[in-house]
Amino acid sequence: MKRILLEVAYDGTNYHGWQIQPNANTIESELDKAIEHLTGETIHVIGASRTDSGVHALCNLAVFDTESRIPPEKFSYALNQGLPEDIRIRNAKEVDLDFHPRKCRSIKTYRYCILNTSFAVPTQRYYSHFYHYPLNVEWMAQGAAYLTGEHDFIAFSNQRTQAESTIRTIYSISVVRQGDMIELLVKGSGFLYNMVRLIAGTLIQVGRGYYPPEYVKEILDNCERGKAGPVAPANGLTLVSYEFI
Amino acid sequence: MKRILLEVAYDGTNYHGWQIQPNANTIESELDKAIEHLTGETIHVIGASRTDSGVHALCNLAVFDTESRIPPEKFSYALNQGLPEDIRIRNAKEVDLDFHPRKCRSIKTYRYCILNTSFAVPTQRYYSHFYHYPLNVEWMAQGAAYLTGEHDFIAFSNQRTQAESTIRTIYSISVVRQGDMIELLVKGSGFLYNMVRLIAGTLIQVGRGYYPPEYVKEILDNCERGKAGPVAPANGLTLVSYEFI
Repeated sequence: MKRILLEVAYDGTNYHGWQIQPNANTIESELDKAIEHLTGETIHVIGASRTDSGVHALCNLAVFDTESRIPPEKFSYALNQGLPEDIRIRNAKEVDLDFHPRKCRSIKTYRYCILNTSFAVPTQRYYSHFYHYPLNVEWMAQGAAYLTGEHDFIAFSNQRTQAESTIRTIYSISVVRQGDMIELLVKGSGFLYNMVRLIAGTLIQVGRGYYPPEYVKEILDNCERGKAGPVAPANGLTLVSYEFI
Repeated sequence: MKRILLEVAYDGTNYHGWQIQPNANTIESELDKAIEHLTGETIHVIGASRTDSGVHALCNLAVFDTESRIPPEKFSYALNQGLPEDIRIRNAKEVDLDFHPRKCRSIKTYRYCILNTSFAVPTQRYYSHFYHYPLNVEWMAQGAAYLTGEHDFIAFSNQRTQAESTIRTIYSISVVRQGDMIELLVKGSGFLYNMVRLIAGTLIQVGRGYYPPEYVKEILDNCERGKAGPVAPANGLTLVSYEFI
């Protein structure tokens, strides 16, 4: 028996998120099907991040156990033959049998893209949130800075959060404009359900001038569930990378 | 009677190119339908660049004549209500009745994107040409440099080229790598059918080491139709901008 770790990139547009659901197309179910087809075994992958419907990944992680004699590093090529083209295995390797992708210390990086211009760009419509009104990036960056460090992020969670603890660490957060695109990049130890989209939604309010940047600190300090937001749309969000530490 | 100039952005993935064809979905036919629906008139827009199937535009141009009393600058908002979301009008304004978008002196800018890395990125699959083998960008840039200036580009055309003259001017051409993405940017007075994709296909051969950079000059000097290439795939190509001079 071997445990195989997959690095998975996907375009989330046509999926109901990562996690298997009855009668819905998900990344997890596509991976299970492709592995089962390849190995002939019944497989349920364990994913690192259960991304929502419409959220993308340049690198999510999944593990599965197999008796297959396929060399571990050959799984990427072999699985890519059977997977739809909006899911690609970047890399595959053997890991210890007790390796669990949600129980390792890691740094996760998420990117949230806001297209901030007067008209929507068709080629960007699935990969950025189009926001028509001018946003002040300096205010957004000032507001974002209050979130770095270890905090109780309960205000940046909602009813669907199942985590026992709502304490998380944000290692860094940046808000940068490149032309018409505003890119929010957040590195953290982990994220509560919808946390990055609640951060993005809150910073958009700040950039618009509805809240002063200091209001982000106030929301955080109040520790009141659902205080932040609104939740920014899924299409702007991409899970960029995983680093084990 | 007024002549209206539209700046049009589109995602070409789901269209059989710009030009109207029987039983095919095209950008031109969508524009005609949307304008007819809005004004009640029978309309045939005239486009500046008849881009191919799968080619994108950040800014193509179209004109049409109308008796409508809608203020010219309101057409962008009004038409965007009726158009599919992969076509957007960026801007609309009145122009002289003798203005013809293919008969004006202009600088057209095309971008060709090559994703040059070991695995395909799902979110980029419609907007870049995935090329797996390492490409040397310096060689590509050296080869590209031979194309600047006024030349007979017949070698960079094919049988479907209908233009009377095959002489064109390339004002500038650059090949730059940003991470895994190689971006070819070409500014010219005009382009023959498939010319940019033939340039991209030729430079890929140079970047791969199949031809030396000087071979680009040889192809050009030979003036033999169809000598360049192969034609790089449509998905990497975007018409970026039009400037009238």
